[in-house]
Amino acid sequence: MTDVSQYNGKFHRASSPSPNVLLLEFNRKPANAFHDPFWMEMRDIIERVSRDGNIRCIVLSSALDKFFTAGLDLDGTSIGKAVNLDAARRGFELYNHIKDFQDAISSLEHCRQPVICAMYGYALGLAIDIASACDVRFAASNVTMGIMEVKVGLAADIGTLQRLPKVVGNGSLARELALTGRKFGAATAQELGFVSKVVDGGRQEVIDAALVLAKEIAENSPVAVYGTKHIMNHARDHAVQEGLNYEAAWNASALQSNDTAASILGVRKRQVPVYENLPSAHVPAKL
Amino acid sequence: MTDVSQYNGKFHRASSPSPNVLLLEFNRKPANAFHDPFWMEMRDIIERVSRDGNIRCIVLSSALDKFFTAGLDLDGTSIGKAVNLDAARRGFELYNHIKDFQDAISSLEHCRQPVICAMYGYALGLAIDIASACDVRFAASNVTMGIMEVKVGLAADIGTLQRLPKVVGNGSLARELALTGRKFGAATAQELGFVSKVVDGGRQEVIDAALVLAKEIAENSPVAVYGTKHIMNHARDHAVQEGLNYEAAWNASALQSNDTAASILGVRKRQVPVYENLPSAHVPAKL
Amino acid sequence: MTDVSQYNGKFHRASSPSPNVLLLEFNRKPANAFHDPFWMEMRDIIERVSRDGNIRCIVLSSALDKFFTAGLDLDGTSIGKAVNLDAARRGFELYNHIKDFQDAISSLEHCRQPVICAMYGYALGLAIDIASACDVRFAASNVTMGIMEVKVGLAADIGTLQRLPKVVGNGSLARELALTGRKFGAATAQELGFVSKVVDGGRQEVIDAALVLAKEIAENSPVAVYGTKHIMNHARDHAVQEGLNYEAAWNASALQSNDTAASILGVRKRQVPVYENLPSAHVPAKL
Amino acid sequence: MTDVSQYNGKFHRASSPSPNVLLLEFNRKPANAFHDPFWMEMRDIIERVSRDGNIRCIVLSSALDKFFTAGLDLDGTSIGKAVNLDAARRGFELYNHIKDFQDAISSLEHCRQPVICAMYGYALGLAIDIASACDVRFAASNVTMGIMEVKVGLAADIGTLQRLPKVVGNGSLARELALTGRKFGAATAQELGFVSKVVDGGRQEVIDAALVLAKEIAENSPVAVYGTKHIMNHARDHAVQEGLNYEAAWNASALQSNDTAASILGVRKRQVPVYENLPSAHVPAKL
Amino acid sequence: MTDVSQYNGKFHRASSPSPNVLLLEFNRKPANAFHDPFWMEMRDIIERVSRDGNIRCIVLSSALDKFFTAGLDLDGTSIGKAVNLDAARRGFELYNHIKDFQDAISSLEHCRQPVICAMYGYALGLAIDIASACDVRFAASNVTMGIMEVKVGLAADIGTLQRLPKVVGNGSLARELALTGRKFGAATAQELGFVSKVVDGGRQEVIDAALVLAKEIAENSPVAVYGTKHIMNHARDHAVQEGLNYEAAWNASALQSNDTAASILGVRKRQVPVYENLPSAHVPAKL
Amino acid sequence: MTDVSQYNGKFHRASSPSPNVLLLEFNRKPANAFHDPFWMEMRDIIERVSRDGNIRCIVLSSALDKFFTAGLDLDGTSIGKAVNLDAARRGFELYNHIKDFQDAISSLEHCRQPVICAMYGYALGLAIDIASACDVRFAASNVTMGIMEVKVGLAADIGTLQRLPKVVGNGSLARELALTGRKFGAATAQELGFVSKVVDGGRQEVIDAALVLAKEIAENSPVAVYGTKHIMNHARDHAVQEGLNYEAAWNASALQSNDTAASILGVRKRQVPVYENLPSAHVPAKL
Repeated sequence: MTDVSQYNGKFHRASSPSPNVLLLEFNRKPANAFHDPFWMEMRDIIERVSRDGNIRCIVLSSALDKFFTAGLDLDGTSIGKAVNLDAARRGFELYNHIKDFQDAISSLEHCRQPVICAMYGYALGLAIDIASACDVRFAASNVTMGIMEVKVGLAADIGTLQRLPKVVGNGSLARELALTGRKFGAATAQELGFVSKVVDGGRQEVIDAALVLAKEIAENSPVAVYGTKHIMNHARDHAVQEGLNYEAAWNASALQSNDTAASILGVRKRQVPVYENLPSAHVPAKL
Repeated sequence: MTDVSQYNGKFHRASSPSPNVLLLEFNRKPANAFHDPFWMEMRDIIERVSRDGNIRCIVLSSALDKFFTAGLDLDGTSIGKAVNLDAARRGFELYNHIKDFQDAISSLEHCRQPVICAMYGYALGLAIDIASACDVRFAASNVTMGIMEVKVGLAADIGTLQRLPKVVGNGSLARELALTGRKFGAATAQELGFVSKVVDGGRQEVIDAALVLAKEIAENSPVAVYGTKHIMNHARDHAVQEGLNYEAAWNASALQSNDTAASILGVRKRQVPVYENLPSAHVPAKL
Repeated sequence: MTDVSQYNGKFHRASSPSPNVLLLEFNRKPANAFHDPFWMEMRDIIERVSRDGNIRCIVLSSALDKFFTAGLDLDGTSIGKAVNLDAARRGFELYNHIKDFQDAISSLEHCRQPVICAMYGYALGLAIDIASACDVRFAASNVTMGIMEVKVGLAADIGTLQRLPKVVGNGSLARELALTGRKFGAATAQELGFVSKVVDGGRQEVIDAALVLAKEIAENSPVAVYGTKHIMNHARDHAVQEGLNYEAAWNASALQSNDTAASILGVRKRQVPVYENLPSAHVPAKL
Repeated sequence: MTDVSQYNGKFHRASSPSPNVLLLEFNRKPANAFHDPFWMEMRDIIERVSRDGNIRCIVLSSALDKFFTAGLDLDGTSIGKAVNLDAARRGFELYNHIKDFQDAISSLEHCRQPVICAMYGYALGLAIDIASACDVRFAASNVTMGIMEVKVGLAADIGTLQRLPKVVGNGSLARELALTGRKFGAATAQELGFVSKVVDGGRQEVIDAALVLAKEIAENSPVAVYGTKHIMNHARDHAVQEGLNYEAAWNASALQSNDTAASILGVRKRQVPVYENLPSAHVPAKL
Repeated sequence: MTDVSQYNGKFHRASSPSPNVLLLEFNRKPANAFHDPFWMEMRDIIERVSRDGNIRCIVLSSALDKFFTAGLDLDGTSIGKAVNLDAARRGFELYNHIKDFQDAISSLEHCRQPVICAMYGYALGLAIDIASACDVRFAASNVTMGIMEVKVGLAADIGTLQRLPKVVGNGSLARELALTGRKFGAATAQELGFVSKVVDGGRQEVIDAALVLAKEIAENSPVAVYGTKHIMNHARDHAVQEGLNYEAAWNASALQSNDTAASILGVRKRQVPVYENLPSAHVPAKL
Repeated sequence: MTDVSQYNGKFHRASSPSPNVLLLEFNRKPANAFHDPFWMEMRDIIERVSRDGNIRCIVLSSALDKFFTAGLDLDGTSIGKAVNLDAARRGFELYNHIKDFQDAISSLEHCRQPVICAMYGYALGLAIDIASACDVRFAASNVTMGIMEVKVGLAADIGTLQRLPKVVGNGSLARELALTGRKFGAATAQELGFVSKVVDGGRQEVIDAALVLAKEIAENSPVAVYGTKHIMNHARDHAVQEGLNYEAAWNASALQSNDTAASILGVRKRQVPVYENLPSAHVPAKL
């Protein structure tokens, strides 16, 4: 097994509670408020994990007892402050900043491993952007969520408005929550279709449940798991026929794995099949 | 506050029950059946409201006790009647008419303010096209809904088939309702994910509930509210990355408002922040 | 009425329990496992039915007591077996095979008649691809479903990953099921929004319920029913404005039917309107 | 023949030099500089012409001897001037203005009749946006063109950057011209593929050539001509298969005209076939 | 080498003038007018060739001295004739017919081998639809071309309007030709960018030139040639980033061929590299 | 002026021959063959330049006398070599590598400054991918170009097949060149529409011409230049209306620059207007 201590950071804690599973916890006291170095570190870790063949599933949560995250660190942002630039040039600065920030959150969607987001306590603002970019969302019954951006004069621009409505089952409720900035709990999150499980309790309980799921996924063929995530991402953004075409091209190589034979052998021998890891890719060296 | 009497019409009643909120009620007795002048007036009002900075949220309902709307005024339509044209030329007439009609309904989607649709009593046929083009949908418990077009030999062409499946959570049920023309009540609408609230009672109760929500939205920053609606419309119709790109361009200017500073100040002073209206735009003069 | 015995096949049983309704049942003992000739036959039948104006609605189910289908016939597939080709050429073989297989399943989506899928017993793997390509899904309470592909080292490439997430209301749950290959029952299918009705019982009960719906649909105008299905397929894959544009072009001819007049006459005379069948189209002769 | 004097305006001169052909000339001395009322009038005229079945082809040019148009009337614009709004609210004003302006130019693309743009003399800035929205472009040998916006601190936002590269044959040259704002003549326009004919001379010569083409088009079936323009607009913006699908829906009614029979009869009788006009549509009354 | 006599047909003549090259010639006297059985046969042949690994390049031309093709066989079409159906049902018939016809022409685009179209003499109407669906177009100097559909009351619906503008360099000229139905010769075709070579002479000369090119292509790696055609088709219809994504998925298997090693070896040994054919795929048996 | 020595690299030479212009030259002897560190360095430099407000235009060329670039360094690639992985896992390795390589070339398209590509001598294989990603292409008369990938068993996957056909005027010729791998000179490049200028001579002459253009662009408003490039990139990949929508959002802030006022003042005072640089953005620190 890989040494996951390489994924510890200034604001992140990494551990591997079961084989091929990474538990990554936000860890910036007192409330996991996100300033630039925080999300830049998250992106860096996720991009390195993505290319690590030893990790097959990620659980994303927090190390703080009461906070998944309180959202953006408003003291750390320049939005709303005076600058000495005309509005066009100031606009370009903001544009660059938004794109960098978006890319950091999108790294969760793009990484090869499924990401299970285990939310509890306060999970506000950016929490929803982050959770929306994950594959699976679990909530503790003590969670308080909110699409808070509208309350500070902003349209959420880091992914909630783009991703959340595509994964829930009530567009009217999604708009209510986004337009009011109203806080909501686990029951509403479930009714909305935003989470697939509500776990009685708080931080520990929801992380435990997420780890059970992660273990189950990590035991499946990593070729199949990576392909399933990758194809579902693609399918969400394309017409059905377009998705089928892409899938056919993707599977032209992915079906040439040893894993199907291993699966069938496993079924016949009534043994748990063993799958090789994906090859680790080198992150392009920074020059 | 703006004088909303300018938004009264032959078939519409306008009032402003709370600051910056417009209540617009259909008002064509006996059943709000839609003929051409009715939806043309609706479009005209909504397009003017859209450019009125004093209005921050719209509640759309009806002034008639039993009818949100019974749908299309079949006596007022030429469909199904003989004409003295070859089928190609007749087809062009129909094409023009459909496009005009579609554009009228789409004005609800395109206007700057969120629109909350408060349905009750009979909400049939065109009612569903209209509600689907709104941002939030509430229903009274006495509502009778129906995607009735199939019952009169038509595929609904004014928006239900395009918009409804994208905002609900059960595609199988959506097709059942569209293919049968079956009537359904508030419970089914909620199970489907079409409405986000069912209010016990009828017309008055559901309008009251919608006005509470409208007031909440109207007190938020209009820059943030307009942006949130605009971006959610865009996101529905685009891949996630495409939506993020557009959002970044949009927010390059939208983040340069005074509203974030006002929000933060409000939080710190524990006062309700006060936001300026959007600038009113002149509707291009008709020549 | 058409003679539906022409739609019997080696692996399919055809009957017409009510006017203009075709009940098509899978029929390959012992478990409806799909090898190539099975799905090729299904495509051939569906494409011929599509052009048959006498059929207005299809119910798709199985003739076997315990199995809707157990999924792919793994003995009948070459996946996972050695071949004497370089990986590029082998990839082209797989690509061709996947495209043919996809096209067979997509025939359900493309055929002119709505297809109601009545599932019960084991409905595994390919069952979900097939059901996702249908318009309406009913399940018996005894059903056991599963997106099983990940369990045999594959990303499902015949349509589940493309279509299922677009018709359900909980993206997190959809990914859970696809990434784990976990089996699930009728309650989960309903909570997910995958089926619109759960029928107490098994094979007979769910087929009966589907036939009631089929009869209701078959009595509506076939111009309206075909258009509604066709337009909903289009709308799913396009932005709203794009869908509206296409609908306007489509209805330029479709509104020139006699069916609207017949509907209105029916309402006025309080009689059930009678609609002519669609014209049958000749399948292009095979050369 | 229709009375085209209804299409005269404060800034436009209308005439009908041959049957079913409208010659529309810009007419604001001294240089056809465009302020808001000018392009609003153009839109109004074009939208009315579009629904006039008597007009089958439009030639767009100018009544001034030396100027097709010198472009935007910079004295008439608020861009670059101080306003008393925060940058977000000012941005919304600009956004609204740009959309209105774009829609005015796009009316040329959307109108049912082909538009032939006859350029000569100075055809700068907005001239290129306008010409790009037309179907066919002719230039007099004396023309001076230029994508001038970059010279006044702007990215052209009324259509040149969107449309011109899609209709020319050298993307490198298109970018050179847009990034430098360099003026260019008829030879470059032809080498670029922007015009299909260069006519020796100036205003009169190029208008005469355009009228010859217009007459030829106006004698063809208006069902076929309208369809050809409409479908080519659609095809430009879509993948080929998507374009074919739309075309099939469009032609389902358009092929049911009397014009094909008239054409074939004409061929057999060696007579010029006579086609009926399209039906005129009423512009929705302004309320 | 494969026996290409299997590709002879009632209206087609097949030969193989050099290894792995198929010359397919239209052969319906006196003018290659296309009725339904003609294009149905063409589709059948092309689809079988597509799956034949022995064929690496196709030259498409005609066996008749003066005619590539005169276009549609108007005596063989039902367009413009009376039918006993309402316009909606008649529209569905036309829709089905157009789709079948389009699919026949699109088989040229979808087949694995590049198709070189060698035009001469009369190449009218459908000739342009066919040529537009090919990869490379050569013209003899004696060619007479024309987008003739507008002359018989139709908007061309089999592919010219969708494909031609995307492969030429002067959108204004493309519209002129489509809107007038004007005939044009080799010089205009070249100026337009529609053909890449004009060959002095007629039938024999242009076929000879096409065969030289076909031989050159057939000697390249068939993995590379198939991939290049397939990817260029995809790229034409997608945004650049989308095309790059698809290409990466495609090449994940295609780069695992033996052909690159063979190429490099060839360069080093100064020998012509020898590449294996693609595997032949079985056309799914017709049931 | 910025110190451009920071943009020197192991394989790149940077200089600034005129204000705000960067000349970047490939510099890996003997033939600028690209191995991974070479294109990784190029990406790193271009991404840093992109955020440098002092650079307003880039000329990309080579420091070697005879070679723009000979293309891929085949000794430095693992393609075609044996690996100890199943084809699926090997496919994922290739996929990752292709994506990284593509992103490096795409950095030229995404950077804020226009890039003028000055080609001469051998400009083969990857040279065409690179040139296609630039804004403007100039060629010396001594250039030898070639889309060589097909000659080594590959479909070009780094951008040529995606970008080149969208910027040229003869799709038939583009396919000929890509399918044969034939070498071609400046005249063909110009006929194809791939370059906008052919300069008599070789390296020095074409670089000089490119620098003249770069100087002209660098003197324009950088707000306008950046916007023009950005919008033209967007427009290439979108339908026209979609492009217009995006442009309106972009210009909502970009029109709020001081540059329009400066331009107008310049015109009135008959002085060269002076524009401020764009703000430099910090590249996110590498963690």
